[in-house]
Amino acid sequence: MTRPDPAQLSINTATLREQWTLPQIIDGCVRHGISGISPWRDQVAKAGLADVARRIRDSGLRVSGYCRGGMFPALDAAGRLAARDDNRRAVDEALAIGARCLVLVVGGLPKDARGAPASRDLGAARAMVRDGIAELLDYARSVRMPLAIEPLHPMYAADRACVNTLAQALDLCEALAPNDTDSLGVAVDVYHVWWDPSLEAQIARAGRLQRLFAYHICDWLVPTTDLLNDRGMMGDGVIDLPRLRGWMEAAGYQGAHEVEIFSARWWACDPDELLRTAKTRHVAAS
Amino acid sequence: MTRPDPAQLSINTATLREQWTLPQIIDGCVRHGISGISPWRDQVAKAGLADVARRIRDSGLRVSGYCRGGMFPALDAAGRLAARDDNRRAVDEALAIGARCLVLVVGGLPKDARGAPASRDLGAARAMVRDGIAELLDYARSVRMPLAIEPLHPMYAADRACVNTLAQALDLCEALAPNDTDSLGVAVDVYHVWWDPSLEAQIARAGRLQRLFAYHICDWLVPTTDLLNDRGMMGDGVIDLPRLRGWMEAAGYQGAHEVEIFSARWWACDPDELLRTAKTRHVAAS
Repeated sequence: MTRPDPAQLSINTATLREQWTLPQIIDGCVRHGISGISPWRDQVAKAGLADVARRIRDSGLRVSGYCRGGMFPALDAAGRLAARDDNRRAVDEALAIGARCLVLVVGGLPKDARGAPASRDLGAARAMVRDGIAELLDYARSVRMPLAIEPLHPMYAADRACVNTLAQALDLCEALAPNDTDSLGVAVDVYHVWWDPSLEAQIARAGRLQRLFAYHICDWLVPTTDLLNDRGMMGDGVIDLPRLRGWMEAAGYQGAHEVEIFSARWWACDPDELLRTAKTRHVAAS
Repeated sequence: MTRPDPAQLSINTATLREQWTLPQIIDGCVRHGISGISPWRDQVAKAGLADVARRIRDSGLRVSGYCRGGMFPALDAAGRLAARDDNRRAVDEALAIGARCLVLVVGGLPKDARGAPASRDLGAARAMVRDGIAELLDYARSVRMPLAIEPLHPMYAADRACVNTLAQALDLCEALAPNDTDSLGVAVDVYHVWWDPSLEAQIARAGRLQRLFAYHICDWLVPTTDLLNDRGMMGDGVIDLPRLRGWMEAAGYQGAHEVEIFSARWWACDPDELLRTAKTRHVAAS
């Protein structure tokens, strides 16, 4: 097994969101010799889209993805229309910053006004996701921004994403864009899919279909003390990251290795130390 | 959709483990007119196997399952031998209390002496599980105790069970006991499998294969605040329990509906109130 190329490292900006603004994260990545970045919409909005686009262009950073579109299910037509419009804006922003793809976290059950689940119909939510992606795809295709469906861990099925396996995401790709591998693909985040008994086969399938648009890395800690914000740094958990990377490479993936760590612990750490650790661990443990 | 038959209600004794001893739980079930029970090994050990077996016989309670065997993976041959012997004792105990089946929580990655994961090789753990079930099956078959593989939620893949989907459990059944539907089947726990896009199809498959040995109910809360002990009472969460029961019934399942709720909240409640609520919700919300 070869080591990963340090030039493949990319930093998902959620990883540093509690310590730094987006301009500071851009500067930090440049200072540490990191070549890729993947910004979140809320951080872009705070810093201003035009300013962020200019800073990224000037920095020379590759943009491995833009986080995120999605959240398609809604209780009524007005809600779904609002999601559609918001997603088109996300596509435009992704274009403005030169992202490789817009990552789609598709949403779970429709929510009520207070944000609580307002339905138990997971099948209906999945149908809304399919319809929402189909509609967004027309727009994204017209401006040439690829969409990457990110299957999320089954523990998020109710509240974040009802696409929960790579097989399910690829079925959507094949159904919605059967002859168009440029416009619709998948983002493989190890945290969400590492447990899947069919992972190796589905990564190979994604490769054959030319749908591997993004690869996100971190680690699964044992014990995991929080469903949202207790992800681990590569090497600190139980995911066999070199093996998963090997499956990605065997499937033809040569893109970025995007470090995305939601972690109350890491958010409390010195951000320069975090980036140094991410660089080291990327090579040594992923 | 018809209502569930109250006579199908069974109480998994983990649900009341913090309030009552096993003899108290048996008495409580009888007092509340509940017809089934599913005891845990540690509670049986504390009360004494012979005494528990006599009490259950005298109570007339049906024993919908015995929790639990499994935990097959180990770092070395000695560890796997210890698991084998312990699992044979679990089979004997299940026989002594007249259980419908021994439920298998198969184990995750091998652990070190302090109980921490000592490997990242999930594939190897799954192979140990397959071998462990195969070996236990010979013994269980000889004494006519059915084994029920329980797929656990993917969030437990590392530390509790590396069988994480119903499809995976059924593949094991077909591989290990191809012509013997009496000895090896599955336990379907809604908490673990409700998110699965292939659930309806896999329940139907399990029915065709005559492998549906047990059905466990509770609910998935949003938000879930703890990975282990924040399960919900039926009706308090997002699982479409009547729909899932419909799939089980369409697949031919007519057995118990076993309430298994690991919940710090419910463990702090009056146990009689808990049983009253479980009875009501079983009919009204499952």
